[in-house]
Amino acid sequence: MQRYLIELSYNGSTFNGWQRQPNAPSVQQCIEECLSKVHSHRQISVVGCGRTDTGVHAKHYVMHVHLPEIVDVDHFLFKLNKVLPEQISFHTIRAVNDDFHARFNATLRTYRYFVHQEKDPFRFEQSWYLPKELDLEKMNDAANYLLGRQDFTSLSKLHTDVKTNMCDVSVARWVRMDDSSLYFEISADRFLRNMVRATVGTLIDVGLGKFSPKDVVAILAAKDRQAASISVPAHGLFLWEVNY
Amino acid sequence: MQRYLIELSYNGSTFNGWQRQPNAPSVQQCIEECLSKVHSHRQISVVGCGRTDTGVHAKHYVMHVHLPEIVDVDHFLFKLNKVLPEQISFHTIRAVNDDFHARFNATLRTYRYFVHQEKDPFRFEQSWYLPKELDLEKMNDAANYLLGRQDFTSLSKLHTDVKTNMCDVSVARWVRMDDSSLYFEISADRFLRNMVRATVGTLIDVGLGKFSPKDVVAILAAKDRQAASISVPAHGLFLWEVNY
Repeated sequence: MQRYLIELSYNGSTFNGWQRQPNAPSVQQCIEECLSKVHSHRQISVVGCGRTDTGVHAKHYVMHVHLPEIVDVDHFLFKLNKVLPEQISFHTIRAVNDDFHARFNATLRTYRYFVHQEKDPFRFEQSWYLPKELDLEKMNDAANYLLGRQDFTSLSKLHTDVKTNMCDVSVARWVRMDDSSLYFEISADRFLRNMVRATVGTLIDVGLGKFSPKDVVAILAAKDRQAASISVPAHGLFLWEVNY
Repeated sequence: MQRYLIELSYNGSTFNGWQRQPNAPSVQQCIEECLSKVHSHRQISVVGCGRTDTGVHAKHYVMHVHLPEIVDVDHFLFKLNKVLPEQISFHTIRAVNDDFHARFNATLRTYRYFVHQEKDPFRFEQSWYLPKELDLEKMNDAANYLLGRQDFTSLSKLHTDVKTNMCDVSVARWVRMDDSSLYFEISADRFLRNMVRATVGTLIDVGLGKFSPKDVVAILAAKDRQAASISVPAHGLFLWEVNY
């Protein structure tokens, strides 16, 4: 047996998130069942770099798993991709030391949230349709106040069991792609539950003129989820990159 | 009442094609019901530029319809787009003469068929996944034999009721977008049922080495659907542009 790191991507539209759970299809369960199918139905458990909520996508996801030694990597990837549904694609696999851990060893995670302002029948499942004018400059001014090591209680789901709500945000910026589409990119050492979607909701309210950019300082200081805006929908959110 | 031309686009994934039919959701029915909803529930019929099969998309579609005079075009489009599902988007509307006909007046139609060769969870519903090497040069050599006014019986669905199978093809070419994705573009004055999908299937068999480019000449000359290859799936096909 050997520990392997697998890089993959998935479309979250039809899954109840990454994490295995009873009575709902998850990405983890689907992958474990496919790996089991090509390994004589032995039980196989994978460890992912983190949870993603129902409907959230992953452009780049990393997991580790113990498998019998793989001789031909290309053949393995080809075979697995045939067994996996079209929503999940394995890109690379490589052997790693037994102490490598997909979640604990990750040093930086990057998310992107996509918004389109003109109705688009070919984009609506992977981007949030918001037919409103947005002041991008103000949204970027507000995003700057998120940088550095800060307490993100105001932008996290209530009643989670983490010990600290401190996160070190190194990138937070809005990028316009064309006249009617844009995305928010945020990188941090760790993310709290619902943090990106609550953050995007708050910055969009800045872009709509409901808050001033500087109000973000007071929102963070309040350490109160009620101080921030409501979360934006899941389907615009992508886990974009995980670094080790 | 005034005749209007409407330009729109739709994602065909969840529809049984353009044409209204009993017991299956069609794009036409959905649009007629939405127009009726915002016009005091009076019955409204639209005339489209052509049929598209189940699962086929339209990046650019044109239809005409009689409506009570529209005073504020922007407001009309905004209102309709709110009532229509995310799969259908109205882009423009303008008044036309009573003799304008969306189907009969169209002089050129262009289709694109998208293929991707590496598994992609974010593209599989609007492009056909074909994990095989393709000889693009040969596929383009073969495509050249489609140009001009010819009989396309070999590349049409059998037993349709059209009077002639002659089509005048002015563009037929493969374009590579990146290392693992490409599309076929074809423009003609008219298209027979299933013609693009049968054509793409045949050209892909050229790219796989099953036919030589010149075999396309014999395939067309045979005037026999059995001489050509099977049709590729609907979800990679887009009606791309309609010209008048």
